[in-house]
Amino acid sequence: MDRPIRHFQEELEGLQTRLLEMGGLAEERVRAAVDGVVSRDVSLIDRVLRGDEPINELHMEIDNRCFKLLALHQPMATDLRAIVAGVKINVDLERVGDLAVNIAEAARRYVTHPPVKKLIDIPQMGDIAQAMLRDALDSFVRRDTRLAQQVLNEDDRLDGLKTQIFRELLSYMLQDPGTVEPALDLILISRHLERIGDHATNIAEDVIFMVSALDVRHHAPNPPV
Amino acid sequence: MDRPIRHFQEELEGLQTRLLEMGGLAEERVRAAVDGVVSRDVSLIDRVLRGDEPINELHMEIDNRCFKLLALHQPMATDLRAIVAGVKINVDLERVGDLAVNIAEAARRYVTHPPVKKLIDIPQMGDIAQAMLRDALDSFVRRDTRLAQQVLNEDDRLDGLKTQIFRELLSYMLQDPGTVEPALDLILISRHLERIGDHATNIAEDVIFMVSALDVRHHAPNPPV
Repeated sequence: MDRPIRHFQEELEGLQTRLLEMGGLAEERVRAAVDGVVSRDVSLIDRVLRGDEPINELHMEIDNRCFKLLALHQPMATDLRAIVAGVKINVDLERVGDLAVNIAEAARRYVTHPPVKKLIDIPQMGDIAQAMLRDALDSFVRRDTRLAQQVLNEDDRLDGLKTQIFRELLSYMLQDPGTVEPALDLILISRHLERIGDHATNIAEDVIFMVSALDVRHHAPNPPV
Repeated sequence: MDRPIRHFQEELEGLQTRLLEMGGLAEERVRAAVDGVVSRDVSLIDRVLRGDEPINELHMEIDNRCFKLLALHQPMATDLRAIVAGVKINVDLERVGDLAVNIAEAARRYVTHPPVKKLIDIPQMGDIAQAMLRDALDSFVRRDTRLAQQVLNEDDRLDGLKTQIFRELLSYMLQDPGTVEPALDLILISRHLERIGDHATNIAEDVIFMVSALDVRHHAPNPPV
C-alpha cells in the first residue's frame, strides 16, 4: 500500500506545480496586456494577442492529469476535493488567459486614438487582480483558508475601482464626443480586469470549500460529503 | 454487484435532472432580463435582481451530488467524465444566472433614459443564447455530439451580432451625446449575452470531450485517459 500512496502524493504535487505554472503564465499575460495599454506599446499588445498557445496546452494537460488521478487512484475526502478543485481552477486560469486577450483586443483599438487621460486606475486594477490571482493559487497550494479569505475581501476594492472608472470615463464621454471610442475601450478593459478578480475569487472559494468542506459560495453552510 | 450499479445509474440520472432544472431556471432568468429591457418593465427587471436564491441553492446541491457520486461509486471512463462534466456545467450555469443579474443591472439604468432605438438585435441575441444553452444541455443528456457541434457553430452568429450592435451604438453615441449612457448599457448587455453563449459553448465542448474523449477545446486532438 505504501508505494501507490506515495505515487499518488507525487502526482498530486505534480498537479499543483502545473497549476502554479499556468497561474504564472496567466498572470504574466495580464501584466503584459495592461503594460501594453499604459505604455501604448503595440508590439507588446500584439504579443498577447498571438501567444495563448502555451496556456491552452497546459489547460489540456492539467485536465488530463486530473482525470488520471481520479480514475487510477479513486481518492477520497480531502484528496478528492483537491482534485475537483484542480479541475475548476484549471478552467478559471484558462479564462484569465482569454481575458488577457480581450484586454489586448480593446488595447489595440485604444492606442489608435489620442489618450483620454493618464492611466492610474487601470494599472492599479491590474496590480490588484494579479495579486489576487497569485494569493488565490498560494492559498490552494498551502491549504491556507485565511489567505483565501483575504482574496475574497480584495474583490470589493476591485469593484470599487471599476465603478469609479466607469463614472469618470462617462463624464469624459458626455463632455467630449471625441473621447467616446477610447473611453469605451477603457471601460471594457476595467470590466475584463474585474472578471479576472472574479476568477481569483472563484479559486479562493474553492480552496475554502476544499479545506473546510464549508460552502462559502452563497453564504450558506453546507454539510461535508 | 447489481444493486450498487443500478443505484449509481439512478444517481447519475438524478444529477442530469437537476442540471436540466438549473438550466431551465437560468434560461428563464435570461429571458426575463431581456424581456425587461425590451418592454422597459421595471418590476420584471427587479424580480431578476432579487431572485437568484433558487439557482444558488441548486448550484450547491448539484456540487454535493457530484462529490457523492465520485466518492461513493468511484466511477471510471465515461461515467467519470460525465460527472466531471457535471461539475463544470454546474459552474457554467451558475455564471449564466449571474449574467442575468448583470443584464438586469444594466437594464435598470437603461430604462431611466429615453430609448435609444427600437431593440431588435438584443432580443435576437437573447433568443440565440437561450437556444444555445438549451441545446447544449440537451446534447449533454442525450450524449449527442452532433447537437453539441451545432452549439459551437451558433456562437459565431452571436459574435457577429455583438460586433454589429457595438458599431451601430457607437455611431449613435458619436452623433448624439444624449445617447451615451443608455447606448453604453446596451453595449454591456450585448456583451453579457455573448458571454452566456460562451458558457453554452463550454458546455458543448465538455459534452464532446465526455462522449468522444476528444479535446476540441483548443482544436488539437488529445489522448483519452
